[in-house]
Amino acid sequence: MSETSRVRVYLGCSLDGCIAGPDNDLSFLMEQAPEPDGEPGPDAGLGFAEFLEQVGALLMGRNTYEVPLKYDAWHYGDRPVLVATHRELPPAPQGGTAWAVQGDIVQLIAQAKEAAGDKDVYLDGGDLVRQALDAGLVDAICLTFLPLILGRGIRLWEGLQSRTDLEFDPPVVHGGRMVQVTARVKRRG
Amino acid sequence: MSETSRVRVYLGCSLDGCIAGPDNDLSFLMEQAPEPDGEPGPDAGLGFAEFLEQVGALLMGRNTYEVPLKYDAWHYGDRPVLVATHRELPPAPQGGTAWAVQGDIVQLIAQAKEAAGDKDVYLDGGDLVRQALDAGLVDAICLTFLPLILGRGIRLWEGLQSRTDLEFDPPVVHGGRMVQVTARVKRRG
Repeated sequence: MSETSRVRVYLGCSLDGCIAGPDNDLSFLMEQAPEPDGEPGPDAGLGFAEFLEQVGALLMGRNTYEVPLKYDAWHYGDRPVLVATHRELPPAPQGGTAWAVQGDIVQLIAQAKEAAGDKDVYLDGGDLVRQALDAGLVDAICLTFLPLILGRGIRLWEGLQSRTDLEFDPPVVHGGRMVQVTARVKRRG
Repeated sequence: MSETSRVRVYLGCSLDGCIAGPDNDLSFLMEQAPEPDGEPGPDAGLGFAEFLEQVGALLMGRNTYEVPLKYDAWHYGDRPVLVATHRELPPAPQGGTAWAVQGDIVQLIAQAKEAAGDKDVYLDGGDLVRQALDAGLVDAICLTFLPLILGRGIRLWEGLQSRTDLEFDPPVVHGGRMVQVTARVKRRG
């Protein structure tokens, strides 16, 4: 485990902070960033490939893990994907590597950093992101705002308890339609 | 009332969409964009003056109206401010003009457009913004994200019911610290 390994969040959401619609419906993501095969992949010119190059391991919740399984898709290459779950895990598609992990958020992130070596941890999924923010364990966050206000849906921030101070990088437009906001977490003296 | 008068939202919020902390606490706004007199004015290099030049009238809720009153501040010059309230209205400070209006959101916005003449309506306050979004009555929205995730607070989007499709303008950084995202509402054919 490297001391320089950072915990990074990389998420797409509506301007009102929805990472999914009601009942985990992701159709608003798919219509905004479709891939040629109609699959809701994260790499739609959003710098995901560059981001992923710095990632040594992923940590995600069970629901997040199951999204690519539905499409027999896998965007993470041979990077280990740690899935927080107490249930048996379906194997990752396309020769990917995934294993189940358990523990509180501190233990989960320690395991992910161990797996990431000297690279970063890509933390994904609303529940784990909120837990890690509340525990002060997130180092950087990249939000890609899709050009809509969804209204009803699953909000990334709902249930968050703690304040996190940030420093923004200059925002960018992607594909002429989306706005990407990147921030580093500011540590207090 | 002009056909070209637009309804525009101009708000500051945390990255997690809080327009106030618990109990309407605005200290996180004040600490981010303080004015020399310590007053939480909206004009902190955020293009507010340029925005206001295009505004003919304001429409806001009672709680929003009472914020500047606490500081004996008034940022709206001689523009009429319509306040949605059934109670008696304290006079606007500094010679400002404010009057009480009643009705549903359609009626309120019609009154504000009437007052705005050929200029725009500045719609302010979480409740009215949500009602106007749900009714399809907002034309443009400008959010200035302050560099923090507040955690607990009053979220702009909470309770929203309807989807609104947007087109983003290029985002900008203000004061090296804040990110401003401007969007026009996309009307469906």
